[in-house]
Amino acid sequence: MKLIVNGEEADLPAVWWNSEQKIVQLIDQTKLPFLTSVHSCFSYLDVVKAIKTMKIRGAPSIGAAAAYGLALAINEFWGESDYSKKIQGAYERLLASRPTAVDLKTGLDYVKEIWSVSKEEAIVYAEKFAENISMQGKKIGEVGKSLVRENMNVLTHCHTGALALVDHGSAIAPLIASWKDGVRFHVYVDETRPRMQGRLTSWELSQYGVDHTVICDSASGYLMATGKVDLIILGADRVTRNGDVANKIGTHNLAVIANHYSIPFYSAFPDTTFDNDTPTGAEIEIEERSQQEIFEVRGYSKTLGEQTSISVYQRNTHCFNPAFDVTPAELLSGYITPHGILSKEDLVRIYSN
Amino acid sequence: MKLIVNGEEADLPAVWWNSEQKIVQLIDQTKLPFLTSVHSCFSYLDVVKAIKTMKIRGAPSIGAAAAYGLALAINEFWGESDYSKKIQGAYERLLASRPTAVDLKTGLDYVKEIWSVSKEEAIVYAEKFAENISMQGKKIGEVGKSLVRENMNVLTHCHTGALALVDHGSAIAPLIASWKDGVRFHVYVDETRPRMQGRLTSWELSQYGVDHTVICDSASGYLMATGKVDLIILGADRVTRNGDVANKIGTHNLAVIANHYSIPFYSAFPDTTFDNDTPTGAEIEIEERSQQEIFEVRGYSKTLGEQTSISVYQRNTHCFNPAFDVTPAELLSGYITPHGILSKEDLVRIYSN
Repeated sequence: MKLIVNGEEADLPAVWWNSEQKIVQLIDQTKLPFLTSVHSCFSYLDVVKAIKTMKIRGAPSIGAAAAYGLALAINEFWGESDYSKKIQGAYERLLASRPTAVDLKTGLDYVKEIWSVSKEEAIVYAEKFAENISMQGKKIGEVGKSLVRENMNVLTHCHTGALALVDHGSAIAPLIASWKDGVRFHVYVDETRPRMQGRLTSWELSQYGVDHTVICDSASGYLMATGKVDLIILGADRVTRNGDVANKIGTHNLAVIANHYSIPFYSAFPDTTFDNDTPTGAEIEIEERSQQEIFEVRGYSKTLGEQTSISVYQRNTHCFNPAFDVTPAELLSGYITPHGILSKEDLVRIYSN
Repeated sequence: MKLIVNGEEADLPAVWWNSEQKIVQLIDQTKLPFLTSVHSCFSYLDVVKAIKTMKIRGAPSIGAAAAYGLALAINEFWGESDYSKKIQGAYERLLASRPTAVDLKTGLDYVKEIWSVSKEEAIVYAEKFAENISMQGKKIGEVGKSLVRENMNVLTHCHTGALALVDHGSAIAPLIASWKDGVRFHVYVDETRPRMQGRLTSWELSQYGVDHTVICDSASGYLMATGKVDLIILGADRVTRNGDVANKIGTHNLAVIANHYSIPFYSAFPDTTFDNDTPTGAEIEIEERSQQEIFEVRGYSKTLGEQTSISVYQRNTHCFNPAFDVTPAELLSGYITPHGILSKEDLVRIYSN
């Protein structure tokens, strides 16, 4: 993605191999959107720490970081007497760095394949793994941009950008691809409480100068009712065999209202998001996350001159924090995938084999 | 309302006359929900300041505070040579303390009627004005409680409590009245970005021990889709002649989703909210408020040991902040008023004369 680091324009993915310095580098997402900075990992343990502290986040990006992390370990320990044992240790520590992401294991296993071949090849494999994720985002962008037309108002929810998908992103990819083609439109960005991923989306759109406005999540109904939304594109965390979409909490609200006002509503995602093993959305267990995420808001304090977290509720308040919801297939207009914009029938035909 | 001030239980309205000390007192809403404290106004200028700094807020409560403020001015200046001029000055300064609230002028005009009669009568009038608002809330509670049944899950949005309506509140009144009757149920409280009035609702429900849970505004669809909401009650800022309801942004979202899932959806309000001069919601101009309200979040900082505000977006982010939306009459199940739970037809018949 295009961005400004230390006052200079750069084109960087979410995580990459710096071949000159032989280190892994990444955009530090914990400092965004207030500060764009590059974080360097000199050892695989630095990568473990970067994943744990969420300097890098978004399942596909975590997978890529882990792949680079293992490649780094292979380069660190190559030729040492207990090499095999050390690589196994690194694999396990990287695997334990985040509890849920399947992509993490996929990335590690991909690089582990050639741990005994050569340390140079390990880097090549990690780069290939990251590149594959990035290419899926690029394809989603090329495929989806036909939906985005001049002067449109597009609404999106949560963060589905390059930071999470190594590069290009999912739902954001068609928007940036269209903007690069010279199409001019406007994006409403849901702030997406509790974690306010809207500020990452806003930050990514800003890198390309895409015209956009942040709104509170509850303002979407007003915008749709008054004809100010022509298209809704958002991502997916999991798509089940019947086309139901599990995605960030609030997706269901948007889908019902869009349906009420006949506004086109699309979900964009890479191949790995399709879950052939789960028949319908009803089988998905919705992750309930910590109340802390609702309680604590992070931002920049003028008084302190730095980023800080504040409590926005009194201590004994009980909050309920479901991280996702499920949108039934019938509320979607279609699916934006690397294989094209698919109807429910096409989606099922192409993926469920 | 029932509350704990300095460790002692008290039953206080949002604003009142302290007859012993001959001062106006109010619950300082800027310190809530973190600290419950009583703010004293020794002069009418203290009341002006309390309204300006939003120590007291909610249109009906502001009206009552202004009425008390003018009564205080009458007591301050009674018998002075330029009495009439001073009262006129006080009237104007109180009137200018907030730009929009109609109730403010109503309260002032009510007390101004008897400015030349007696200083004691001025206090009586102010108390009568406040009492009338409070009684409307009480009636709404009595009327609306038939909707609230044992084991129900009720959803509400924004703050419609005693703090805003001198006492009892509007949408919250049936909940508290039912709870006092021994009915046991559970309330989901929308946090209501950007200003998070949900924390005031949570605070008021806590005073009576009403079982409740705060949710992010975008979690409502998930709850409704999974059968976890049996009833929605919220307030109104303005109800037009055809029964359309202007209310806090996000109301429209809830109404559409409730309609989709056939969940009863009611608006509760006092007589003054009905606007016979506006034919439909389409004629209401939606107030667009400052971006600052989305940008800045107030809360308690452990680091600072006090309440503070932080910026949650980078400086150049553009935000759109419509304060209200309009819900068409056909999406409502009914209206909870001091005259009963009314259908659209009854509402129009009773009010539009």
